[in-house]
Amino acid sequence: MDQLKPTQPNSIPLTPLTLLERAAVAYAESPSLVYKATTFTWADTNRRCLRLASSIATLGISRGDVVSIVAPNVPAAYELHFAAPMAGAVLNNINTRLDPRTISVLLRHSESKLVFVYYQLQSVVLEAISLLPADHPRPILVLITDNEYDYDHITTNDDESLNAKLVDICNPSEEFMTTYEDMVKNGDPDFKWVQPQSEWDPLVLNYTSGTTSSPKGVVHSHRGCFITTMDALTDWSVPKQPVYLWTLPMFHANGWGFTWGMAAVGGTNICLKKFDGATIHAAIRAHQVTHMCAAPIVLNMITTLTSDPGPLSWPVHVLTGGSPPPAPILLRAESLGFIVGHGYGLTEAGGVIVSCAWKSHWNRLSALERARLKARQGVRTIGLTNLDVINPYTGQPVKRDGKTVGEIVFRGGTIMLGYLKDPEGTSKCMRNDGWFRTGDLGVMHKDGYLEIKDRSKDIIISGGENISSVEVENVLYSLAAVNEAAVVAKPDEYWGETPCAFVSLRKGMKEKVTERDVIEYCRAKMPHYMVPKRVIFKEELPKTSTGKFQKYLLRKMAKALDKDDQNVVTATSLASRL
Amino acid sequence: MDQLKPTQPNSIPLTPLTLLERAAVAYAESPSLVYKATTFTWADTNRRCLRLASSIATLGISRGDVVSIVAPNVPAAYELHFAAPMAGAVLNNINTRLDPRTISVLLRHSESKLVFVYYQLQSVVLEAISLLPADHPRPILVLITDNEYDYDHITTNDDESLNAKLVDICNPSEEFMTTYEDMVKNGDPDFKWVQPQSEWDPLVLNYTSGTTSSPKGVVHSHRGCFITTMDALTDWSVPKQPVYLWTLPMFHANGWGFTWGMAAVGGTNICLKKFDGATIHAAIRAHQVTHMCAAPIVLNMITTLTSDPGPLSWPVHVLTGGSPPPAPILLRAESLGFIVGHGYGLTEAGGVIVSCAWKSHWNRLSALERARLKARQGVRTIGLTNLDVINPYTGQPVKRDGKTVGEIVFRGGTIMLGYLKDPEGTSKCMRNDGWFRTGDLGVMHKDGYLEIKDRSKDIIISGGENISSVEVENVLYSLAAVNEAAVVAKPDEYWGETPCAFVSLRKGMKEKVTERDVIEYCRAKMPHYMVPKRVIFKEELPKTSTGKFQKYLLRKMAKALDKDDQNVVTATSLASRL
Repeated sequence: MDQLKPTQPNSIPLTPLTLLERAAVAYAESPSLVYKATTFTWADTNRRCLRLASSIATLGISRGDVVSIVAPNVPAAYELHFAAPMAGAVLNNINTRLDPRTISVLLRHSESKLVFVYYQLQSVVLEAISLLPADHPRPILVLITDNEYDYDHITTNDDESLNAKLVDICNPSEEFMTTYEDMVKNGDPDFKWVQPQSEWDPLVLNYTSGTTSSPKGVVHSHRGCFITTMDALTDWSVPKQPVYLWTLPMFHANGWGFTWGMAAVGGTNICLKKFDGATIHAAIRAHQVTHMCAAPIVLNMITTLTSDPGPLSWPVHVLTGGSPPPAPILLRAESLGFIVGHGYGLTEAGGVIVSCAWKSHWNRLSALERARLKARQGVRTIGLTNLDVINPYTGQPVKRDGKTVGEIVFRGGTIMLGYLKDPEGTSKCMRNDGWFRTGDLGVMHKDGYLEIKDRSKDIIISGGENISSVEVENVLYSLAAVNEAAVVAKPDEYWGETPCAFVSLRKGMKEKVTERDVIEYCRAKMPHYMVPKRVIFKEELPKTSTGKFQKYLLRKMAKALDKDDQNVVTATSLASRL
Repeated sequence: MDQLKPTQPNSIPLTPLTLLERAAVAYAESPSLVYKATTFTWADTNRRCLRLASSIATLGISRGDVVSIVAPNVPAAYELHFAAPMAGAVLNNINTRLDPRTISVLLRHSESKLVFVYYQLQSVVLEAISLLPADHPRPILVLITDNEYDYDHITTNDDESLNAKLVDICNPSEEFMTTYEDMVKNGDPDFKWVQPQSEWDPLVLNYTSGTTSSPKGVVHSHRGCFITTMDALTDWSVPKQPVYLWTLPMFHANGWGFTWGMAAVGGTNICLKKFDGATIHAAIRAHQVTHMCAAPIVLNMITTLTSDPGPLSWPVHVLTGGSPPPAPILLRAESLGFIVGHGYGLTEAGGVIVSCAWKSHWNRLSALERARLKARQGVRTIGLTNLDVINPYTGQPVKRDGKTVGEIVFRGGTIMLGYLKDPEGTSKCMRNDGWFRTGDLGVMHKDGYLEIKDRSKDIIISGGENISSVEVENVLYSLAAVNEAAVVAKPDEYWGETPCAFVSLRKGMKEKVTERDVIEYCRAKMPHYMVPKRVIFKEELPKTSTGKFQKYLLRKMAKALDKDDQNVVTATSLASRL
């Protein structure tokens, strides 16, 4: 057949930005975002983003410039996912838990031209700025205030009496050029936003979280984010006009694509600046929340309240990711009325790209068996083209036996463009054989379901045997007294490394459980070489802002355990190994 | 920011074909397709398609060759949407209602190398082949038989006792090289299917229906069909594992993308070779159908049964397209328990690309007002980038007043590559200003919702005034006695054209309604110049295979009305105009 070439009508760049102007028509009067006492509609949000984009352009920001934000899940964080790229900029949403030094490194690396700063984080960011080299150009700073949202409603239509409410209760210090709401107020709602020239143009810059040694700048294109958005909605079967509660930080891989996704389906974004289990339950009930994404730690939070919130009277869909949720937590969540979906993703992949496609006939299995199946990561989403587990040396797929560990690899339209200013790092994972190499370890089950054995950096290698910290943690979580558990490698003169567990116990269990109890329990449940040689009890385990355990801190603690102690344990482990 | 280039892992061609191998993992044991007494699983369907693709390749078909099928909605029609392109071929699904001469024209134009023929249509296709020019190469013919499906279950796994059931009850005549089921049976389930080299490679060739003068060969790419598939699922909020009833012919724009879409969500395809209202109601109840696409004529069919089927005990989602459904039919369908969605699309657009996004606050309106809003075509789907109504001469958007008629235009990833061997026709609609020109007329409402006034070829121009046949038809449908109504232009010496109505009446109404009654009714409801000057009663109106009225036939009939009669009518219409 004659080859037909792409033409203008069919090759217009894919981008998630067009979803906003569509929402402003299809869902004009429907709520788009609720924060404190304020509710916006989709028409409001579209106008606010256009105004903001025009003000960003007025500041001299143009195509390809990086615009950063350091803020929790407040309206500005949501709106900038549209407004910054609508001015042609690349959005860089920075993790709010980072220290000034790291923020300074990121601002320098990204050459950010404009930084939006939440008022409670201004001292951190100002310190970061002060740490920039003397010859590095200073970014423009804009303050995000918060008290405006205490009013019933903010509107950006041209009713001046309402606009008058947008007073800056928090006067910015001289370092700040203006405030976020002033930029919205003074912007042009008829701004012609900047379309991408190519669908491969960069849209966002996400730095990977600080669990790795040096943060990498993950760049995603308009095309990639569009596919991620459609993929996220389809894979989770998100209906029209859901009520979506933000506990997942938006700076975490752009909220797994649900920032743009909520515009696609006309959802209501319920924003929370900070939260605990009780706040989440209250928000779910106050706003009739139907959907939320949650790190496993948040899932834990909402299932272990001190006062029983009682079951939900409607289903709340929770999508969880990161490490696999331990079976007992899954079971508790389901008994409360949460419908838990579970996915695996990477910042580099745009969001969730493997999820546990549930088979209806599995409903007939026992609760424990169901939890075991649900803890497997599952199958690729429809936006991903291929997924496999390969032998990293030969490049060949491993046996589909649920046992042979290999490296998880995939390819597809949601994958990043690459790492900013890091061609070496980029080519290390973006391979010429077509695979993206994750560095994560997994097995492929006989039925084609993927199960992660360990994020590569979390593997413990003891006497040449690979120990999956996840597997050990799962056993620890099956112990009723355990609240949180994290297992890391502890250096060992004999074995190289041994597993060391850090555990926090449920209330009232502290006097009742000893290190010996836990070790005995594990020995009954797993091969002896996998049993933690030490179990350290903590009030609470250190976590990253995205709810992942900060294993590098735990590794430091494990390393610092005293020498004598280590020798004793090594002897024990030797005994148990044999 | 430094520009990062696409690399192999992120730029692998988008294609809907990968959805099948995913379904074979995620929904392995779930039903994929039910036909007669046979049920396949997704593992079966994947194996059958791989076997078939290998057999197609064995016949010498290679990349870019056209493979045709002439068949109703039987398993072969579904499976070939995957299997033919998995052999590298371009699938050409031919309308079963076409006459031998037209089929011959299409086979010649497409240079089809291989034609799958349903056994009941073999004489039509053999005649079409005989009409090919003497020097045109003969395509290979394969017979699709049907009796195999009377068995409880056909499986293509390697159990020979089951394969033995695949006897060819219908022995093909010598013109046929083999049978479809023999190709499945003899194929290789481990076939390495042919991946597209570029996502712009052609995937399907759809000829537009015979309502226009000369059929055009619409070519869609792998990329376009992938976006259409995701768009169709997202816009209709299709959940996982729906039960989907096929009444929409798959040869009609590839079933609006739901052929591939059902693999994406692991749905069950309920295939019917032919049907009427009672068959559809029986199938809905037998298989617990949750979703179906239906031409308005099918919607009419299922809402006007002679015996009352009673309300459905679960919601059945019906997506209808083509002409806007008349309000009374919408109301009847909803009272039976159907949830009717309404879309607008074109073969050239890949499927439905405008749909009536429903606003929850509209639920508070009266039933009639709701029907009026629902009859508007609505807003673009999220897979479409832009949609507008423009003045075709200036190229400028028309006023958003719900009144100013202009040409409907759009751009986006679902749009065809172009027309096969027709650069002139292609450039006429694929414009350099970026718009795809539909030739259809519409208005843009103040709230941004599109309403079609007429498919351009259906417009009636009377004394310089454009009359929308759709508007006149809507009034006719509001008359309780009317079953079907179609309005066309009738040549008129004075006015140029006048509207002529063809109407079929409900049972028992024939004696009770006269032409004069209908005309009087219309005169009370619309401007006089729009009132049909003739109303012709018919037992049934002629329709295309996709349920659209064959207006070209009606136009011929209108033209043939006797001269005397025409003069009388012209005088009447003159009077009524003044």
